[in-house]
Amino acid sequence: MVAVTIWNEFRHEREDDEVAAVYPDGIHATLAAALEDDHEVRTATLDDPEHGLTEEVLDGTDVLLWWGHKAHDEVDDLVVDRVQERVLDGMGLLVLHSGHYSKPFKRLMGTTCSLQWREDGATERLWVVDPGHPIADGLDEYVELPETEMYGEPFDVPEPDRLVFTSWFEGGEVFRSGCCYRRGSGRIFYFRPGHETYPIYENEAVRRVLRNAVDWAAPTEGAPRTFGHRD
Amino acid sequence: MVAVTIWNEFRHEREDDEVAAVYPDGIHATLAAALEDDHEVRTATLDDPEHGLTEEVLDGTDVLLWWGHKAHDEVDDLVVDRVQERVLDGMGLLVLHSGHYSKPFKRLMGTTCSLQWREDGATERLWVVDPGHPIADGLDEYVELPETEMYGEPFDVPEPDRLVFTSWFEGGEVFRSGCCYRRGSGRIFYFRPGHETYPIYENEAVRRVLRNAVDWAAPTEGAPRTFGHRD
Amino acid sequence: MVAVTIWNEFRHEREDDEVAAVYPDGIHATLAAALEDDHEVRTATLDDPEHGLTEEVLDGTDVLLWWGHKAHDEVDDLVVDRVQERVLDGMGLLVLHSGHYSKPFKRLMGTTCSLQWREDGATERLWVVDPGHPIADGLDEYVELPETEMYGEPFDVPEPDRLVFTSWFEGGEVFRSGCCYRRGSGRIFYFRPGHETYPIYENEAVRRVLRNAVDWAAPTEGAPRTFGHRD
Amino acid sequence: MVAVTIWNEFRHEREDDEVAAVYPDGIHATLAAALEDDHEVRTATLDDPEHGLTEEVLDGTDVLLWWGHKAHDEVDDLVVDRVQERVLDGMGLLVLHSGHYSKPFKRLMGTTCSLQWREDGATERLWVVDPGHPIADGLDEYVELPETEMYGEPFDVPEPDRLVFTSWFEGGEVFRSGCCYRRGSGRIFYFRPGHETYPIYENEAVRRVLRNAVDWAAPTEGAPRTFGHRD
Repeated sequence: MVAVTIWNEFRHEREDDEVAAVYPDGIHATLAAALEDDHEVRTATLDDPEHGLTEEVLDGTDVLLWWGHKAHDEVDDLVVDRVQERVLDGMGLLVLHSGHYSKPFKRLMGTTCSLQWREDGATERLWVVDPGHPIADGLDEYVELPETEMYGEPFDVPEPDRLVFTSWFEGGEVFRSGCCYRRGSGRIFYFRPGHETYPIYENEAVRRVLRNAVDWAAPTEGAPRTFGHRD
Repeated sequence: MVAVTIWNEFRHEREDDEVAAVYPDGIHATLAAALEDDHEVRTATLDDPEHGLTEEVLDGTDVLLWWGHKAHDEVDDLVVDRVQERVLDGMGLLVLHSGHYSKPFKRLMGTTCSLQWREDGATERLWVVDPGHPIADGLDEYVELPETEMYGEPFDVPEPDRLVFTSWFEGGEVFRSGCCYRRGSGRIFYFRPGHETYPIYENEAVRRVLRNAVDWAAPTEGAPRTFGHRD
Repeated sequence: MVAVTIWNEFRHEREDDEVAAVYPDGIHATLAAALEDDHEVRTATLDDPEHGLTEEVLDGTDVLLWWGHKAHDEVDDLVVDRVQERVLDGMGLLVLHSGHYSKPFKRLMGTTCSLQWREDGATERLWVVDPGHPIADGLDEYVELPETEMYGEPFDVPEPDRLVFTSWFEGGEVFRSGCCYRRGSGRIFYFRPGHETYPIYENEAVRRVLRNAVDWAAPTEGAPRTFGHRD
Repeated sequence: MVAVTIWNEFRHEREDDEVAAVYPDGIHATLAAALEDDHEVRTATLDDPEHGLTEEVLDGTDVLLWWGHKAHDEVDDLVVDRVQERVLDGMGLLVLHSGHYSKPFKRLMGTTCSLQWREDGATERLWVVDPGHPIADGLDEYVELPETEMYGEPFDVPEPDRLVFTSWFEGGEVFRSGCCYRRGSGRIFYFRPGHETYPIYENEAVRRVLRNAVDWAAPTEGAPRTFGHRD
């Protein structure tokens, strides 16, 4: 069974009633509920020692999910180093919504990961532009989300190895919402949907994408990564 | 100066008053007008001998533009062979709008090049998703086209080497509207905008894209392409 | 269990004693032996009715292997159409060695698929350049093949979506020997090693690659591929 | 005229007689000689104030070349930030040989950029695997370098957007020696050849590649990169 660690900043839910109303136990708890039927799931948060991401936890993690939006700067660079190293060594990484600005994602992309945004609660349609991709397994041609925060292009990331979703927004924008990357032996998936006050992670199709993406990102055996002097 | 040949099916304009009203001299004439200030331009049409694409014409062509939509099947396979060979050898190819279903494009892509469509005359916004690309030179963050035929995903083409534009449609769809490919030594650009009854090719930003794309697709010197037995 | 169909031209083995000595039951039989422990395997050959690739056979095939080298032109275009359509619809395709010049591969690539070659029986080292790829599972950093036919660059194929192997040849050449593509919903893997008089398919590491590649190329569920007019 | 800044660590040439014998005025002087006929060239070194890469210098640079191998860690992170920012904003970057381990390259790639190496002075053949690429303009099918340091796979970088060269080494290894990337609006080219005691940068074909790569990496106009809140 794939071992999943869900990392959540877990500040906003404890400080803001509106957020707490949507995610009373934290976004990580809702994400865990989406995955725990067929994955081994644990959670970790910013205020845990070492943010909950000790060497031991990461060594035992196949796929790490990352949610954060208000306190990116508080993540310790040593933990970022550790996450980067584990990804290059094969651990999968799912970066969710505002996690585009997280330190691990920016580190692994090498770009600013900036974008345009507007919090207008308008409709989003998440179109499958790569219907043959396993992350799209079992979806319809698009997923409609009635109330979302808009993210618009340009999105300052490297051209994805594979683009699975492109979002249409009622207000007139588009966004590359499902981006696959490999870095070292690790698979990385950026998935746009999510928000702290819209209940996006209760949506069944979104939960299906999360499960698909975790399974896609799980490490494979591969071949040796041997570096250095060669006789 | 880059030598451009504009190929047009040129049937609809001669048979249909509505089309003739928009493009009285044929779509090729309008496209030529967009390019002729800084390119050496000639035109060729389906009903010319060898569709106007003799060996001599193609040998003298740096970049070929292709427009067709009603008579794709009437294009002779020998001419398709010739176009494919010249592209692999370095000639640029711009495939416009309904040209997605043309024989040369399907031949070079290896897929059906199918898509979804609706002729509703609604608004399209052509977002630049790769602002660093030379095909986007001089554009604003998007190009708005007030009345267009919709093309929607999925678009059955190989993942583009580089995606420059993604369209947003008023009716709720998205489309990868500016797709760059290299095949052999040749550069190929698929560009969605265009229609026989909407005056898309009169739009200044669209004309700018056409000029940029021609310059991008022009052959470079390269290195030898030597094949076969090697001593 | 993944349903595999192995297609072999099966002419040379019946006409040439040297070839028959290496592959007495045909190359397809040796390939079948490499796969049949954990796959459901059937075979088909050029001289079977419809080359053994009826609609029914292809509909029941998850992954098709293709070996041919002397009689590519005798493959019926209707069968090529059928293979292309099935690949776009999700069937995996492994193209082996001289199959680079087969009609289905050229059709799906859109290029000549030409290369340089020399039959000198010298050593090849097949380096893993993407150690995180599942096709490299369980391999060492390279596979050494003591006697091979050389294939050299340039290789006239589209830039692979993912390059898994690059070959080093004793005589001074290199070659992109393991190339992954997606076309439509189908996964395509070109794998260089193989020859009719060197017993390449008896090599354990090569057989491991074949098994890995079949598993990688097997169809996933995906999302609908709906085309045409949209209301 | 393209404005080029050549950055050199410039330590080894001042400390080691063998290195000084090959590059008496520093590697930057030899690189400058290869470019100055048709480019506006200046140089900068590690021991200059701000390593010679002030805001003003970088603002006036179209393409930056980077050579370093012994003192990567001494490069100030503020200068690395500045280089990264300028690349994302459009400045070209050529990373040479041991510069694979430089801070700017690792920052922009997001990976370790590790590889295998052996200083054996054996022959390298740099094969053009993408003959249609402008960086290969005017080359033959390969460039032979009689005495080089070997670099071998795996090379821990993201899959290149475009692979132009693959090296064959006499000792049995291969390496992706010419790797193109875009990050933000900037073009990055990693080029393997070079060494402090082999006179690689005196080789005419290598110098041609440097000139081609500088021209390829020069900024284009592009479209706006607007980020942040959108009304």
